[in-house]
Amino acid sequence: MKIEIWIEFASTYSYLTVMRAENILSEKGIDLAWRPFLLGPIFHAKGYESSPFVIDPVKGKYMWRDVARRAAHYGLPFKQPSIFPVNGLKAARIMTAALNEPWCGQFARAVFKAQFERGEDISTEPVLTAALKECGVEPEYWLAKSQSDDTKTALRNRTEEASRLGIFGSPSFVVDQELFWGDDRFEDAIAWALNIQA
Amino acid sequence: MKIEIWIEFASTYSYLTVMRAENILSEKGIDLAWRPFLLGPIFHAKGYESSPFVIDPVKGKYMWRDVARRAAHYGLPFKQPSIFPVNGLKAARIMTAALNEPWCGQFARAVFKAQFERGEDISTEPVLTAALKECGVEPEYWLAKSQSDDTKTALRNRTEEASRLGIFGSPSFVVDQELFWGDDRFEDAIAWALNIQA
Repeated sequence: MKIEIWIEFASTYSYLTVMRAENILSEKGIDLAWRPFLLGPIFHAKGYESSPFVIDPVKGKYMWRDVARRAAHYGLPFKQPSIFPVNGLKAARIMTAALNEPWCGQFARAVFKAQFERGEDISTEPVLTAALKECGVEPEYWLAKSQSDDTKTALRNRTEEASRLGIFGSPSFVVDQELFWGDDRFEDAIAWALNIQA
Repeated sequence: MKIEIWIEFASTYSYLTVMRAENILSEKGIDLAWRPFLLGPIFHAKGYESSPFVIDPVKGKYMWRDVARRAAHYGLPFKQPSIFPVNGLKAARIMTAALNEPWCGQFARAVFKAQFERGEDISTEPVLTAALKECGVEPEYWLAKSQSDDTKTALRNRTEEASRLGIFGSPSFVVDQELFWGDDRFEDAIAWALNIQA
């Protein structure tokens, strides 16, 4: 059985999932398929001009407190970045280009750590270059590949697929036809996958 | 230590909390303070004309599936009521009037069961009368008391207090100064309370 993990790089709660997903699923013997996508177009289609956490500052204030508490619960460092929501387009394109590479998950973790452990702006090339270097690969090659028409189209298609699947937030999990939303549903998605497997 | 449980009667996820809260907290030795309030005025102040689950049908569709799954997880029956969101004003007023009565939690459970086990319209007097009868009390007396100026004022003040506390959804939990939102944060709220106690 396989769990698809749909992530938008600007998403705070996705940090909590990305940092732990590979180890947990490997332990459980469940395959992981990363699905980088963009929430921006999905929000825009609803008429949102920014993240719901910016549009509703009361909810936003709660979210920062909640993410900090949940990060502490998982033993993850956490720092609120100065820019939110960041533009995750470049990071999502690199991950899309690298989807079949063994370091794909490592890249995602490197980017999320830069953003939420160190508060860095992951829309900038130096930060993405550093994340690629952490994976031991050639930044120039992957930055170029991430800007190819094939990659751009693949990411656009992926985002349209997210919309068709009824995905409206990140992280989301798809197991078979079943959709789960939020880091706090990761365990439910795992239980669903194990139940199908059994 | 004490956990305040803030509930709006129209809220689906609050069903999941209300049905299990008293037994769990009594087992853990934590006091429970019910805080019935209305989400309507809080939503209206933001310009929402209905529940976010109605305004955003994609999110709404997901919510019904998620609540059904979570109810199954807790072993609770679940039926989607024909009216959503229901007007929870009368139920909230009765609970406000009965806040110091030993059957206050039982009344909340009876109303949530009517709505989400049997799909009944809890804005109607026969349903509320039946819930009061289940608690073994005099429906006429409590219906009258629920419509007194004192009760109306108390509920209005409670809703304003919710707003001041940064509450934007139901269920919400307040432990000391700490706010938790959602049935899926009930365990976090309990852990917070136990940690303060220790």
